[in-house]
Amino acid sequence: MNKITTLFDIKYPIIQAGMIWCSGWRLASAVSNAGGLGLIGSGSMNPDILLEHIAKCKQATYKPFGVNIPLIFPFAEEFINIVVQEKIPIVFTSAGNPSKWTPLLKSHGIRVVHVIANVKFAKKCEEAGVDAVVAEGFEAGGHNGREETTSMVLIPMIREATSIPLIAAGGIATGRGMLAAFALGADAVQIGSRFVATPESSAHDSFKQRILQASEGDTKLMMKRLTPVRLLKNKFYDEIENLENQGASLEQIAEHLGKGRARKGMFEGNEQEGELEIGQISGLIHQIKPAATIIQEIMNEFHQAQQELKDIII
Amino acid sequence: MNKITTLFDIKYPIIQAGMIWCSGWRLASAVSNAGGLGLIGSGSMNPDILLEHIAKCKQATYKPFGVNIPLIFPFAEEFINIVVQEKIPIVFTSAGNPSKWTPLLKSHGIRVVHVIANVKFAKKCEEAGVDAVVAEGFEAGGHNGREETTSMVLIPMIREATSIPLIAAGGIATGRGMLAAFALGADAVQIGSRFVATPESSAHDSFKQRILQASEGDTKLMMKRLTPVRLLKNKFYDEIENLENQGASLEQIAEHLGKGRARKGMFEGNEQEGELEIGQISGLIHQIKPAATIIQEIMNEFHQAQQELKDIII
Repeated sequence: MNKITTLFDIKYPIIQAGMIWCSGWRLASAVSNAGGLGLIGSGSMNPDILLEHIAKCKQATYKPFGVNIPLIFPFAEEFINIVVQEKIPIVFTSAGNPSKWTPLLKSHGIRVVHVIANVKFAKKCEEAGVDAVVAEGFEAGGHNGREETTSMVLIPMIREATSIPLIAAGGIATGRGMLAAFALGADAVQIGSRFVATPESSAHDSFKQRILQASEGDTKLMMKRLTPVRLLKNKFYDEIENLENQGASLEQIAEHLGKGRARKGMFEGNEQEGELEIGQISGLIHQIKPAATIIQEIMNEFHQAQQELKDIII
Repeated sequence: MNKITTLFDIKYPIIQAGMIWCSGWRLASAVSNAGGLGLIGSGSMNPDILLEHIAKCKQATYKPFGVNIPLIFPFAEEFINIVVQEKIPIVFTSAGNPSKWTPLLKSHGIRVVHVIANVKFAKKCEEAGVDAVVAEGFEAGGHNGREETTSMVLIPMIREATSIPLIAAGGIATGRGMLAAFALGADAVQIGSRFVATPESSAHDSFKQRILQASEGDTKLMMKRLTPVRLLKNKFYDEIENLENQGASLEQIAEHLGKGRARKGMFEGNEQEGELEIGQISGLIHQIKPAATIIQEIMNEFHQAQQELKDIII
């Protein structure tokens, strides 16, 4: 039995990452209906919007789905209350201390998963009684750890240091990537970028097209001294890079960043002035496909690669 | 049949990376005797020293071994002549244009492998008639690509874009890492860091101890604007980081770098003033072991993990 499919009562150990501006009820319900675990990304919502997405998601699927809550978010406490009231079975928390909300959520029978990018926090999660961790490698899109540990290194390090169920994220978009993560010790995978390039994601069409066009070296982890985030290269990215190379202060960078850049880039389709958060693996994403098709393709490739590895004789 | 074991006439598809100051005849012959492919790292040698290492390596093993030649190195042309004269069967070239020496080497029946860090150069290698490429991910120690593409992303991208035999490097030190690389499409692995932590490597003992102590976040890709190199954190590293954060010019950084830093750190054991080139995966290396033991452990773990993956039913 797979630890993660058992924990969440789902068919496939494939989690769709909760992503700001990209993963509302439509994407989450499509993934859950297809046998994965869909997550509503609450980090770009207010309480009314979150309630609306939860209600629509419940109407769109009978399968389990979850909500991702970034704990540094101003609405974090309200969102915690909302998921408890709405009897959401699975909550992913990120960007904060796992011990803060885990006991409350677990007392309501909620499965709690926390997103981390290093061994230190994986151990804290285990101590806090979290049900599973998402280990996010350097190649992942969006906000990321300061250690810059890649999935190839992070997964086995966490597997060695803890026995907590482990969901690998970062650099995974295919069945082969999923199998590689399993070889390194993961029990499941969390996939973001590939699910952005679906009809069901709420990303702006121009952002989806940019993902299809992305090639190697087109994303980079930026703003490492402020708050590291992997972005697709554009005018905004170049401006930040120039500021950093000139030795700008954190205040100068924060001022240029301003507010609403992520909404502008990913939701409103302002390709040049907006922030486009996406993973390195976008270089392998060539087509927009429905979430259900993606899950079937991943599982087919996983089984095919599993057979190929079995046949290697050395 | 495995493409790389056939190409090199070796038992296991495990290549020991040619590394400056660390991989002389003693390490290369130990790896080749154990069934892998040992490489003499010529980048820290002069012609006399290289000839001496080749002679000693020939005495120490009847198995095939190779030489790694960084093409930007001042002695590159002399080294090319030496490997031809000495009838070295396998040459790994790096840091340069693969089309420059490949025809000459191949005309002498030498197997040519070129080290790259992106798809663009993998395609160039294929066009140049190179026999195989080493794809080096962001997590690898020492000099590295500007795209910062991790092994998890680089391996499948090169597999998709070319059909050239593919040796994965960066973040691999164990049988599970090797199996993950195979799942992503690699035919073999090149391992550096773990072979530095052997009695046979010529690294200074204090550097070997630092590798055992290294933990997550203890290495970082530095000098990205000058020439990206992954280093273990020490006083020298901190000084370079400060210069970079203050927006120092390339000239200022190059001046502080000076000459002989790598020799100082890795060969002479000056832990604070020297440059310590090592991979992220050093966080998983806990013990100094003979090269032959490492190869056996890797193969045992590979076979065990292969069995575990075979048994996954999802």
